[in-house]
Amino acid sequence: MDLSGQPSELYDPIRYMMQLGGKRIRPVLVLMANELFGGKEELAMPAALGIEVFHNFTLLHDDIMDKAPLRRAKPTVHVKWNSDIAILSGDTMFVRACQLMTSVESRNMKKVLDIFYKTAVEVCEGQQMDMNFETAQTVTIQDYIHMISLKTAVLLGASLAIGAVCADASEKDTASIYEFGKNLGIAFQLHDDILDVYADQEKFGKQVGGDIIANKKTFLLLKAMEMAKGDDAAQLRHWLNVKDFNSAEKVKAVTGIYDRIGIKALSEKEMDKYFTLSMDNLHSISVHADGKEQLIRLAEQLMVREK
Amino acid sequence: MDLSGQPSELYDPIRYMMQLGGKRIRPVLVLMANELFGGKEELAMPAALGIEVFHNFTLLHDDIMDKAPLRRAKPTVHVKWNSDIAILSGDTMFVRACQLMTSVESRNMKKVLDIFYKTAVEVCEGQQMDMNFETAQTVTIQDYIHMISLKTAVLLGASLAIGAVCADASEKDTASIYEFGKNLGIAFQLHDDILDVYADQEKFGKQVGGDIIANKKTFLLLKAMEMAKGDDAAQLRHWLNVKDFNSAEKVKAVTGIYDRIGIKALSEKEMDKYFTLSMDNLHSISVHADGKEQLIRLAEQLMVREK
Repeated sequence: MDLSGQPSELYDPIRYMMQLGGKRIRPVLVLMANELFGGKEELAMPAALGIEVFHNFTLLHDDIMDKAPLRRAKPTVHVKWNSDIAILSGDTMFVRACQLMTSVESRNMKKVLDIFYKTAVEVCEGQQMDMNFETAQTVTIQDYIHMISLKTAVLLGASLAIGAVCADASEKDTASIYEFGKNLGIAFQLHDDILDVYADQEKFGKQVGGDIIANKKTFLLLKAMEMAKGDDAAQLRHWLNVKDFNSAEKVKAVTGIYDRIGIKALSEKEMDKYFTLSMDNLHSISVHADGKEQLIRLAEQLMVREK
Repeated sequence: MDLSGQPSELYDPIRYMMQLGGKRIRPVLVLMANELFGGKEELAMPAALGIEVFHNFTLLHDDIMDKAPLRRAKPTVHVKWNSDIAILSGDTMFVRACQLMTSVESRNMKKVLDIFYKTAVEVCEGQQMDMNFETAQTVTIQDYIHMISLKTAVLLGASLAIGAVCADASEKDTASIYEFGKNLGIAFQLHDDILDVYADQEKFGKQVGGDIIANKKTFLLLKAMEMAKGDDAAQLRHWLNVKDFNSAEKVKAVTGIYDRIGIKALSEKEMDKYFTLSMDNLHSISVHADGKEQLIRLAEQLMVREK
């Protein structure tokens, strides 16, 4: 992709953002789905790149809204440059992503764009819901699953569906692989929420307990608020409302409440439910089982539990 | 267009922005170009709407970057809600604009999207150049014309070209009507710069002299900096550098310098150059002259000089 444009204040942040790295899961999903249905890799490549550029655009704008200082241990664009430049280079990345998506075979372009734009709107809606949750008084578990579905899961589904369309897969198979990705994405986010509390700090990229410190309304907290009784309920309310606190102490106390209620097992049960759904979706696809092994391995890797 | 989505924090600002009004010049240009080449109005309508939504998206994000408190005499979205919501509802508007652009006839979709995305990138580049100019030490008149061409003029050209494509116009005619719109857009912006200094305050929507107060590097200022000699040059430098000043006094003094150099006539000469170019572009189009009268009238209306 040509990122050598002018003015440099616009393109330097784009190059910076794209070079920060990451697991590149979404373009890999585009290419794997395309391969599953016997498509030619070069025909899915523009869409794979487009999805990754789009994903990085959402990260760039989310980082402004979340006031995040770091992204992959490097300063975020709005910190290294400023918010105005971050808004505008994000906008430009989104246009570049659109240009890449229109570079697929013309017979598949409308289908690819319909999935892509529907998903892009949903990702915006999910981000807005996530921001609303910060100050919302009541968030149900159903609301939460809906939010992570929009913010995170649909883009995994869309990546796979777009790869399938580029390989001329049937509508039914395209819908199934979309659902596989979406359910896997929900399981993946629940896994991430669990790790945030229960990961081994030495193996975990972020601060363990970060969600607890920030009162982030994850599945774990919402479930605990629903289930805590008596003294646990009072203590949980205390830790959610107290302004001055010692972080380590808060993490230890809230984790203790989670442990007494059995939140980890309940969260894993919910995660397993969506993981199983995703496997059912994958098995319903009308290609030989051997072809699906690569996707199953990737799905399992995403779900690896910390020892 | 369906703008009834959820969450409301995302869609309320979009509805608000779209209902603020404005002259709707860009969608009118799409439809007029489409009519000029004998196209069916309903086939160009999605693109006309898409262009207007895109334009309003750029205004929404520009208002954040410019810290503008008002848009069409109403609070801007980032003031009425907040910057995060303004970023995200802007992003969503851009996606909606893309969706509208993909609703044109499939045989013309790739051509329409290629023009649209190329233009969208240029508009971002123009906005970044405009921001760079605020702190740049040297801006040439050529730089300035390039900036307003990207930030303002190309979208007028693109509106016309997209309307032409929807009517299956030839490549040559599409290119000519694009150039007509682009040159008209440059003339229009120069006209706007002149009005900012020389309009009758009672008929002018904004504060006359606003560009002078803000040291905005318009054609008028750049030309004055190039031409001012002796005492005028010293005075102009003084007014550009002084921090504490009386606005009315500054406007009067700088306008006085402009008047002594003859900046108004020089600016009108430059504007007329681009207006003439645009008329040449229009005349080169291979349809009967009668069909062009509507566009000529619109172009002239855009150029009406204040009495």
